[in-house]
Amino acid sequence: MIHGRKVIGIIGGMGPMATADLFTKIIESTVAASDQEHMHVLIDSNTDIPDRTACILQGSDAPLAPMVESAKRLVAQGADVLIIPCNTAHYFHPGVQAAVDVPVLNMPEISARYCAERGFSCVALLSTAGTVRAQIYEPYFEKLGIRLLHPSKVGIDNLMYLIYDEVKAGRIPHPERLYPEIVALEEQGAQAFLLACTELPLVFQGGGRVPFIDPTLLLARAAVVEAGGMVKE
Amino acid sequence: MIHGRKVIGIIGGMGPMATADLFTKIIESTVAASDQEHMHVLIDSNTDIPDRTACILQGSDAPLAPMVESAKRLVAQGADVLIIPCNTAHYFHPGVQAAVDVPVLNMPEISARYCAERGFSCVALLSTAGTVRAQIYEPYFEKLGIRLLHPSKVGIDNLMYLIYDEVKAGRIPHPERLYPEIVALEEQGAQAFLLACTELPLVFQGGGRVPFIDPTLLLARAAVVEAGGMVKE
Repeated sequence: MIHGRKVIGIIGGMGPMATADLFTKIIESTVAASDQEHMHVLIDSNTDIPDRTACILQGSDAPLAPMVESAKRLVAQGADVLIIPCNTAHYFHPGVQAAVDVPVLNMPEISARYCAERGFSCVALLSTAGTVRAQIYEPYFEKLGIRLLHPSKVGIDNLMYLIYDEVKAGRIPHPERLYPEIVALEEQGAQAFLLACTELPLVFQGGGRVPFIDPTLLLARAAVVEAGGMVKE
Repeated sequence: MIHGRKVIGIIGGMGPMATADLFTKIIESTVAASDQEHMHVLIDSNTDIPDRTACILQGSDAPLAPMVESAKRLVAQGADVLIIPCNTAHYFHPGVQAAVDVPVLNMPEISARYCAERGFSCVALLSTAGTVRAQIYEPYFEKLGIRLLHPSKVGIDNLMYLIYDEVKAGRIPHPERLYPEIVALEEQGAQAFLLACTELPLVFQGGGRVPFIDPTLLLARAAVVEAGGMVKE
């Protein structure tokens, strides 16, 4: 690591593959010509954290305590800035931030700023049922005057199947079952799609007529900047 | 994580992309139908560790102290078994193992056992100049009666260029410059090629007439077994 840079800590395991994806995106986003020019990253891929959507739907805050423990462990190890590769887990972001003295970057807020900078006024949210129910993205987008569209009930069910029964279960994903919903959201005026579950950038790449925005990549780039690194253009 | 399983710690950063590759291979190797069935993994991607090949060629043991620090930090955080995603860094394996009470798995030893189980008697080593100079693979293969072939001087130079000036520098790799050397090693009797630098499995996939063996994958699978997980067949 280059002298003076900060150490990035990842509160991971939610899920493990999304954690590896965020770590890879940090490496790929960093301007570096050798191992030593990359960022120092600490990861706690803690698979003991209960499922976030299940807890939110049941009104339980069971994920908060292990997330705080993980955050404190990472800070004790030397982390200067923390990130969480799970959109749904951002429901517990205020609780984690309150427990540590270092900044915990906020993925929905970073995504909203990105959309505002690009002049979007209407964006579709592809996420878990927990992220929808807990209104995790809404406050940040409303504040910047951006309308958020959601998939239909059937669309959310299909997203949950893709995320839980395919990606998290280690099976071959079939994102094509989402295509009719994507067309419908485009027709409702979506100018972009937010892949607002960290499992989704693992299956959707590129995009169709309207862009797919990857909050994991935005978070990776924000973490590199916050830690004093240079981001590739 | 499933109760009773051990926590895997990765002494990483050597290089960062090889660390992400090992982490991904642990996840992909584990039988798991949900986040919670995956292994708990702690990673210290410590990019402060000096270049291993440069140190070995200069007779310096500068990487040992930060590797030991990293090992101790991971154990203090709860790691029960440690792994190192850098073949050249295994020169310092005895020093790291002596400093901690948990097992530090040995990638060259695991690779030698794998080759012996498959009945190979002659294998070609694709690695850094540091791994060749320090004879990191030789003792384990000699012990099992397997002959190790090395690329020519030009071949090692080409490997070093591929590893340092392309992969570690974040440039597009050109593994095809190695092909004449690979053909020559096949003609000398190589029954398999060991991708014995953790940057090499990032560029060589599959293999030609004779198999390419990926020690990173063997290490990932050994770590999952050691930690009490089930490995996918």
